[in-house]
Amino acid sequence: MTGALALVGLGPGSKQYLTLRAMEVLQACDAVVGYTAYVDLVAAWFPSETRRWVRGKLGQEYERATEAIRLAQDGLRVALVSTGDATIYGMGGPLWETLARQGWDSAAPDPPVEVVPGVTAALSANALLGAPLADDVALISLSDVVAPWSLIAERLDAAARADFVLALYNPASSRRREGIGEAQRMILKHRASSTPVALVRNALRADQQVWVTTLGEFLETEMAIDMSTVVIVGNRQTTCVGSYLVSRRVPREAAR
Amino acid sequence: MTGALALVGLGPGSKQYLTLRAMEVLQACDAVVGYTAYVDLVAAWFPSETRRWVRGKLGQEYERATEAIRLAQDGLRVALVSTGDATIYGMGGPLWETLARQGWDSAAPDPPVEVVPGVTAALSANALLGAPLADDVALISLSDVVAPWSLIAERLDAAARADFVLALYNPASSRRREGIGEAQRMILKHRASSTPVALVRNALRADQQVWVTTLGEFLETEMAIDMSTVVIVGNRQTTCVGSYLVSRRVPREAAR
Repeated sequence: MTGALALVGLGPGSKQYLTLRAMEVLQACDAVVGYTAYVDLVAAWFPSETRRWVRGKLGQEYERATEAIRLAQDGLRVALVSTGDATIYGMGGPLWETLARQGWDSAAPDPPVEVVPGVTAALSANALLGAPLADDVALISLSDVVAPWSLIAERLDAAARADFVLALYNPASSRRREGIGEAQRMILKHRASSTPVALVRNALRADQQVWVTTLGEFLETEMAIDMSTVVIVGNRQTTCVGSYLVSRRVPREAAR
Repeated sequence: MTGALALVGLGPGSKQYLTLRAMEVLQACDAVVGYTAYVDLVAAWFPSETRRWVRGKLGQEYERATEAIRLAQDGLRVALVSTGDATIYGMGGPLWETLARQGWDSAAPDPPVEVVPGVTAALSANALLGAPLADDVALISLSDVVAPWSLIAERLDAAARADFVLALYNPASSRRREGIGEAQRMILKHRASSTPVALVRNALRADQQVWVTTLGEFLETEMAIDMSTVVIVGNRQTTCVGSYLVSRRVPREAAR
């Protein structure tokens, strides 16, 4: 049996931002398992008549992890894919939780598992914006499908207070529109309304969109905020360079 | 004039974790500017007799940014390189601060600037560990060369309190050994001493090293902690799967 499982981060969703290792694994594998839209991406980049394409639904992450493990145990080289880095709000959690539940043994792994890292959405957004992430950063998902809003709110407040640059993932969905407004109100307690904020949608894909605005006004572009958007909230050190942003690390002198 | 400047993230420092775009830019460029060890990496991957190799020293980030801009204004295609993602504790801040100071105009850019994102060290470490970063994450540099320790401490406390997974960059240098101990004491105020902690050094390079230990005991491996190490501190949801780690997103039910 030569089965193996690779968790592969596809990056922003353009072939040119794949890592060489991700490309190698995707070209060599026998089966690709993932959310439909992501499997379609891989099928377009690396067409194959013989490879098995297993397309899953949103919300069925644990089913996909189980299926990927089973196929690998059956002897296939399986790529379980997510966009960005596959662990940052991707399939990493469901995969490793499932392996743990199944009693997977890291000393004699069946299947062997490799994690191939990828460029997460905050880094793709940053690349379009210049360098807003050049100081300490907090990544926060606003999705309360799993986590309770009380915890998300606590993290928003703590990170805003301690002046982290914020990268907000999953800021809103078609059903969930209130969280981003509440986030704005909470962050405004700690930062000026003139603080630079950028909305980046489908970063580094053909249909990318970028808005550079402010903490006080970014909800006016609310139509731009959905599950494909990352919201970058600058900290007290973030300034505009034309249409770009840079966050300067606080100099020791300034803090005296 | 065809000059252009690309800020290129080299990823962990193995060729196979470069993005295709980074590879394309590095192969096509006329000059590579960076810290000596990083320029050496690129020279080994993509040797060239004609390309200009500009090796700089640690601590001279602004000089390197200025030189890279000047060469691009002179008509060269310049790659300014850092490992990981070039903005996360890399050359992104110095580059964009220098562009701002020079009055660089984003509407008529001279030189045009492209940022090529890369796999940052926290993601490389995560790939070796399974999925410790599968919940909200705070990236914090413990280097107080620029930022004051008071701010670093405030961020450590806030992120530990609000139960972020922590990725600590630059945890110690040959001169600076106290910060990581103080960080441990601060985090212990909010988390059990049994909390999983991983030390990952030179992740995804030939000489990589991984230690999975606990918050209470990780300083016993202090020799492993230097500028090439990332320290991943689990949150209350982080558990071990054999020698791997996974952080489960807090379920809403558990929070009731």
